[in-house]
Amino acid sequence: MTKLTFDITMSLDGFVAGPNPRDEQPLGDGGERLHQWVYGLKTWREQHGRPGGEANRDAEIVEESTAGVGAAIIGRGMFGGGYGPWDESWQGRWGDDPALQHACVRPHPPCPRAVGYEGRDHLQLRHRRDRVSPRSGSVGGRRQGRRGLRRRERRVAVPAGRSADEFQVHVSPVLLGGGVRLFDQLGPEQIELETIRAVESPAVTHLKYRVVR
Amino acid sequence: MTKLTFDITMSLDGFVAGPNPRDEQPLGDGGERLHQWVYGLKTWREQHGRPGGEANRDAEIVEESTAGVGAAIIGRGMFGGGYGPWDESWQGRWGDDPALQHACVRPHPPCPRAVGYEGRDHLQLRHRRDRVSPRSGSVGGRRQGRRGLRRRERRVAVPAGRSADEFQVHVSPVLLGGGVRLFDQLGPEQIELETIRAVESPAVTHLKYRVVR
Repeated sequence: MTKLTFDITMSLDGFVAGPNPRDEQPLGDGGERLHQWVYGLKTWREQHGRPGGEANRDAEIVEESTAGVGAAIIGRGMFGGGYGPWDESWQGRWGDDPALQHACVRPHPPCPRAVGYEGRDHLQLRHRRDRVSPRSGSVGGRRQGRRGLRRRERRVAVPAGRSADEFQVHVSPVLLGGGVRLFDQLGPEQIELETIRAVESPAVTHLKYRVVR
Repeated sequence: MTKLTFDITMSLDGFVAGPNPRDEQPLGDGGERLHQWVYGLKTWREQHGRPGGEANRDAEIVEESTAGVGAAIIGRGMFGGGYGPWDESWQGRWGDDPALQHACVRPHPPCPRAVGYEGRDHLQLRHRRDRVSPRSGSVGGRRQGRRGLRRRERRVAVPAGRSADEFQVHVSPVLLGGGVRLFDQLGPEQIELETIRAVESPAVTHLKYRVVR
């Protein structure tokens, strides 16, 4: 059975983007501070076609977090294109610089070629919900991450109402003081977690949990 | 110079108490789930005059977190006594079962005997602000913890406007979905943190930070 996960960086005070996210600054004010830990890592740089970088435990974790992923469900915030009506010509925020190493799945038609896949495969993924890789699915982006926990995966390739099976939160030593919260509007239903692991580095702490049914 | 710290348990979604904290349930709905990790530890049980308990890394961390503390600044939420006008006969939530192993300092007159000290010492601590132990001060409770970061320690034994020097957050694998946030209303001032360490256990993750001036 497909395992549904999400993997996201959060500030210590719970934000995945700073205040006032907008087209020019999708992570909001100060939101780039969240991700300082990743930009210098060898694995992240390789995934983005850049040379050099550090090979350390953080780098291994970045590699691990994408290695087993067959397809990613991304939301509009991660795909980009603004917050108003859809611009049908929009091809995604990254253009030819794929930020995901696997197919992405999202509901709206202008979803681009699959990043890291050829376009056809992606279209299959998008239109034939039974074709998502059985390896694992990953929920990317803050809105989809929250939806995963809120059991509201309705229009995506995982069964409706299914929550994440596991997730990893990279806690950055940053206080943003405001912005977009990862865990918000969870609803009254009690969600039980089990800690899988916590990994420390000076730059970030990686917390991995299993959602207990 | 006195080192000002705080040490508190937070849910993964950022709450230090559940929704609707009240006299009968000071930690709010579900808030007791936060502290499950501590009740079975040998050091915690010893501090509360109870036998038995596990001696593990979590227990060491509990011991360490109180060992160097000369005095604790606690707020009304931790001292208890309700949320309305002060009841001058109130002697603190714990009565003869001290939850703190050191003197407590708080501004309002009915602050009880020092917990773990004799009453006189505590009164000195409370009334003579220069007499707080130079070893270290600890900010206890959620409101005081937030105030420490918000540099609003006005009526307590540390210099006015001083923020915490270090703090430890025990992240419980719990999602409360609502309640009292630890990091809230931090204000626009950017606070820089350095990770001191992260320690993992199945029950909780201990994150310790230094506040960079």
